[in-house]
Amino acid sequence: MLVVSKASQFRVRFEPDGAEVMVDAGTLLTLAALKAGIELRTSCGGSGTCGMCGVWVKTGELSTKVSAGLTDREYQHGLMLACQSRVVEDVTVLVSGPPVKDTCHLHEEFTGGRLIPGIASAGWNYRPPVTKYALKLNEPSIKDNQPDLKRLRKALSKKGHDRLNISYSVLKTLPDVLRAGNWKVTATVVDAWPCPMLVNLQSGDVSGKHYEVILDVGTTAIRGQLLDLNTGMVVSEAIDYNRQSEFGEDVISRIVYSRQKGGLTRLQKAVAETIDGIISKMSDKAEIKKEHLSHLTVAGNTVMTQMLFSVDPEPLRLSPYVPAFDTPPQVSAKSIGINLPEHVYIYAMPCVSSYVGGDIVAGVIGTGIYQRERISLYIDIGTNGEIVVGNSEWLVTAACSAGPTFEGGGVKFGMVASKGAIEGFTLEPETQKPSLSVIGGIRPGGICGSGLINIVATLLKAGILGQNGKFNLDADCSQVRQGDDGPEYVIVEACNSLNGNDIVITEMDIDNFIRSKAAIFAGCHTLVESVGLKFGDIDDIIISGTFGNRINIESAVQAGLLPDLPREKFYYVGNGSLLGARLTSFSKELYQEGITLPGKITNFELSEDPSFMDNYIAGLFLPHTDKNKFPSVEYAV
Amino acid sequence: MLVVSKASQFRVRFEPDGAEVMVDAGTLLTLAALKAGIELRTSCGGSGTCGMCGVWVKTGELSTKVSAGLTDREYQHGLMLACQSRVVEDVTVLVSGPPVKDTCHLHEEFTGGRLIPGIASAGWNYRPPVTKYALKLNEPSIKDNQPDLKRLRKALSKKGHDRLNISYSVLKTLPDVLRAGNWKVTATVVDAWPCPMLVNLQSGDVSGKHYEVILDVGTTAIRGQLLDLNTGMVVSEAIDYNRQSEFGEDVISRIVYSRQKGGLTRLQKAVAETIDGIISKMSDKAEIKKEHLSHLTVAGNTVMTQMLFSVDPEPLRLSPYVPAFDTPPQVSAKSIGINLPEHVYIYAMPCVSSYVGGDIVAGVIGTGIYQRERISLYIDIGTNGEIVVGNSEWLVTAACSAGPTFEGGGVKFGMVASKGAIEGFTLEPETQKPSLSVIGGIRPGGICGSGLINIVATLLKAGILGQNGKFNLDADCSQVRQGDDGPEYVIVEACNSLNGNDIVITEMDIDNFIRSKAAIFAGCHTLVESVGLKFGDIDDIIISGTFGNRINIESAVQAGLLPDLPREKFYYVGNGSLLGARLTSFSKELYQEGITLPGKITNFELSEDPSFMDNYIAGLFLPHTDKNKFPSVEYAV
Repeated sequence: MLVVSKASQFRVRFEPDGAEVMVDAGTLLTLAALKAGIELRTSCGGSGTCGMCGVWVKTGELSTKVSAGLTDREYQHGLMLACQSRVVEDVTVLVSGPPVKDTCHLHEEFTGGRLIPGIASAGWNYRPPVTKYALKLNEPSIKDNQPDLKRLRKALSKKGHDRLNISYSVLKTLPDVLRAGNWKVTATVVDAWPCPMLVNLQSGDVSGKHYEVILDVGTTAIRGQLLDLNTGMVVSEAIDYNRQSEFGEDVISRIVYSRQKGGLTRLQKAVAETIDGIISKMSDKAEIKKEHLSHLTVAGNTVMTQMLFSVDPEPLRLSPYVPAFDTPPQVSAKSIGINLPEHVYIYAMPCVSSYVGGDIVAGVIGTGIYQRERISLYIDIGTNGEIVVGNSEWLVTAACSAGPTFEGGGVKFGMVASKGAIEGFTLEPETQKPSLSVIGGIRPGGICGSGLINIVATLLKAGILGQNGKFNLDADCSQVRQGDDGPEYVIVEACNSLNGNDIVITEMDIDNFIRSKAAIFAGCHTLVESVGLKFGDIDDIIISGTFGNRINIESAVQAGLLPDLPREKFYYVGNGSLLGARLTSFSKELYQEGITLPGKITNFELSEDPSFMDNYIAGLFLPHTDKNKFPSVEYAV
Repeated sequence: MLVVSKASQFRVRFEPDGAEVMVDAGTLLTLAALKAGIELRTSCGGSGTCGMCGVWVKTGELSTKVSAGLTDREYQHGLMLACQSRVVEDVTVLVSGPPVKDTCHLHEEFTGGRLIPGIASAGWNYRPPVTKYALKLNEPSIKDNQPDLKRLRKALSKKGHDRLNISYSVLKTLPDVLRAGNWKVTATVVDAWPCPMLVNLQSGDVSGKHYEVILDVGTTAIRGQLLDLNTGMVVSEAIDYNRQSEFGEDVISRIVYSRQKGGLTRLQKAVAETIDGIISKMSDKAEIKKEHLSHLTVAGNTVMTQMLFSVDPEPLRLSPYVPAFDTPPQVSAKSIGINLPEHVYIYAMPCVSSYVGGDIVAGVIGTGIYQRERISLYIDIGTNGEIVVGNSEWLVTAACSAGPTFEGGGVKFGMVASKGAIEGFTLEPETQKPSLSVIGGIRPGGICGSGLINIVATLLKAGILGQNGKFNLDADCSQVRQGDDGPEYVIVEACNSLNGNDIVITEMDIDNFIRSKAAIFAGCHTLVESVGLKFGDIDDIIISGTFGNRINIESAVQAGLLPDLPREKFYYVGNGSLLGARLTSFSKELYQEGITLPGKITNFELSEDPSFMDNYIAGLFLPHTDKNKFPSVEYAV
């Protein structure tokens, strides 16, 4: 039996991170973890069946339930499931597994890496901006026959909602829903700016089923997570290529395509269909009906966001590069062609400028760089490279076109970071033969962004690749051969590959990589200098981007992608866009801060600054033409 | 040349009403009139061409323009058009024509009668809740490339709109509209509760074209007015039968019909089509394009309003008689199937109870009975009879089913009060032959509600009709004959009628009339007694309803429809529903008061009070079984 101590709040400490938090008596440990910035893995949505959120109690006690997710042996060894355990006194727990990564990796391995705590937004409470209220209304009588809507408004007013907009779809079925539920109903309220809205009314108490979909709408790939808003857990994930890619690889070519007759409509349909597929995949996997989805949050770059809302993107590519909107109004996702019930409204993270969009605002919100005095350099590596520098006092941002290299585009055997992608790459010391690690542990099918970085850094260090990006044909390396497109390096032979082809990397691939990394490095360099700083003044360098398990910081510096700074300054947060979208879905405070944040960020147009082009050209070398910029990098040649 | 005196405000007095008002220098006289509660006729929307708003200056001077609407002779005789004249000093004017009536009469005659001033809402300013702002935005530059929406929001913030919802249709075309107008745009903002909304954005300055449609959605007929929101003038009117009538004559039979498969959809389509027709007729007549319509306000009974929004009306007819909503959210009229551009949002005047709807709230708002200490009895006579009693302290309301008699239903030759309807009816003193007045001055085609009242009162007084509603076959009257349905009175012989038929009134018609008037009288009686008052305690009796030019109060008392009180206590306001809708369209204050008004009105269910049925049965006689209730009525028999 559970005896709750009389103190109303208790301290919970999470090892090995050391994060501490004060919570109310009876708080679920998963929510305490969330508040502390510790994210626990789960695949069952907190029902106690997947067994992934295990903790060991080191000091103090928890009130826990035995559940199917733990074996008897685990239980006897003191393992408890956080989702089944409540705080009843001061307690220190050791988290058993690794935290959930912020990447949509689609595989179960985890190879470590520094994660969110210490670098995430702080000071927020778990109070999602989308709420489901189970209401019991008084049944009307001849003495009390006020309108249904008035009765409902009164009940919602008691929940703090005095001036609610009502969606027409709620109005249309209002009398039937109230009566079918015998005056017990569940109301879904979106605390939207500038006016909260009642988006859904369901008969009976269905407040236990309350899910949010979050999407990182990227130029090349779209990544989704399905969140259980009752537990704050990620219950499933999915990724797919953005079907817009068939109309152009980068945002500029898609904007150009949108000028064709019907072009924008086709682009919009393509992205909506991709989203439909991802949502279906996630809800099927988690066995969640779409009627129980309460809301959709998207974070995408400005071009992607604008096209998703069918708004002409042409002004984004022409000087003076003006976006149509910062925060679009929340509308039913259905009204923009997404196959969801009418009650699912869509919030798009706001955009700053033509090339700094909601994904970056999400990253800033998620990592909390706008909250701290320390100066951060936030780099989001994708088809576009977006960069933010600043702290709680000031923030500047810029974007550069990196090309699709880091997401598998422009690389002969490139692919997104999903099952079968080569990620880890080293050379065996004795034979100098490639040694690989592959996502999902299956045969390799291609090379993802982090794999490419590792390959380039390794071959450079080994002298197989020259600083000019050409293979050193004098080196005695049996993997290098002449291919159809010139010299190439054989990473996997056909007999070992997933599709029965040799997997190679060509000089053209290396060229594309060099241009991509040069653009990002030059962008960082130019932006940092634009505010009168040097790289050495930066306290934290935060890397966002979907690189399989993680980006290898060492390789990225070696290859000249990231500045050569003390490695302990680097944090890899995985997909910063999803991180921010997730925290925004968890917290009204962060949602509100997100709305006003773009107004506090100064946009910097790299294309208008001649020093950017100089920096870019200087970076078209491995790692850089200026060796002094990379003192820690050793070269074989 | 116009020299404006230095004083900033001037007094304007309107004769013959005697209303006075203070206005700013330069105010258009039409707006001054509106502020004073004087409504001037117009059919040109204030462009100076129809010549209907003429005034004579008695003291002081106006600054006026000569325009096509006046003949040289009129101008030489000192007639000026109010719509072309501005106030430059204290002035007294004599209004030349009669004020616009509140009826949708569709003909040009006016026979007099007491009108609005003295009995309308007071204390409001002319500030429509729907506003068109002509904006000039700064053109973006590379130094100022903020999002379009942010730029627009800033401009609207200067107009006092800080937290505007943006409609998706505005968002979708935002970049194109801003650029097509070279950063000059016109924004239409609906000051909707609970959140104002930007509903339309047009390129260039089109603020001069700003119209509102108001509709009285009745069970039998729908009446519309088209208002010019820049001048506060009624620019055209139209009326049509509600096409729902084919599914049932009264609200109960339509609710029953709505239970059929597809029934509600058919009913909704029928009313939407009727509305489409009325709006087209009005906009064609006034030569106004639909794109220049800014808003739609409807005032209808609860059943009509609920069906218009496709909301199941069944709970309205079953105890405990619960309406679905008081104030529905404003939605695009298009989304409820009305053929208007997407930017036209619809406001429905709020409902009090199942049988006291937005038309009555409009009447209360329009006549201002909720503002005064004097006790008013407001009676709206239509297919339903709705009654309100009260003052600024308290208000009670009730409804009774009168049937369609007063709108031409249930009467063999009944028709709505439009061209060709017999309205005035007397007997020539010498011959005792009928003497008629017909709306539009054409051959008679049928009998409207006020005609029916006049006919019954006249035949009763002459002894041709008995108090039991049967024709006195002993009376020597050649107009009475046996018809297919029993005894009937020939009003017009075939050779003189519009359609070549004899126009008659039958005993069945009289029976229907008696039931209708008994219901309304009993409703008034029961409601007044329910609050512990007697008819003698009432200060003002306000009659609303569309009775051609006017209802003849004397006849209505004679026939037992209205209580026998001093005639100077009676006010006829025409269509109270349109009056209130119009004033609500003119004034934010009244719009806001309308939203909260239903909460201050106590509903009284007549069907639950046994004394109502007693009163009803006692009223099934002409004028009443209790002669003492009608002391001023003389009988021939």
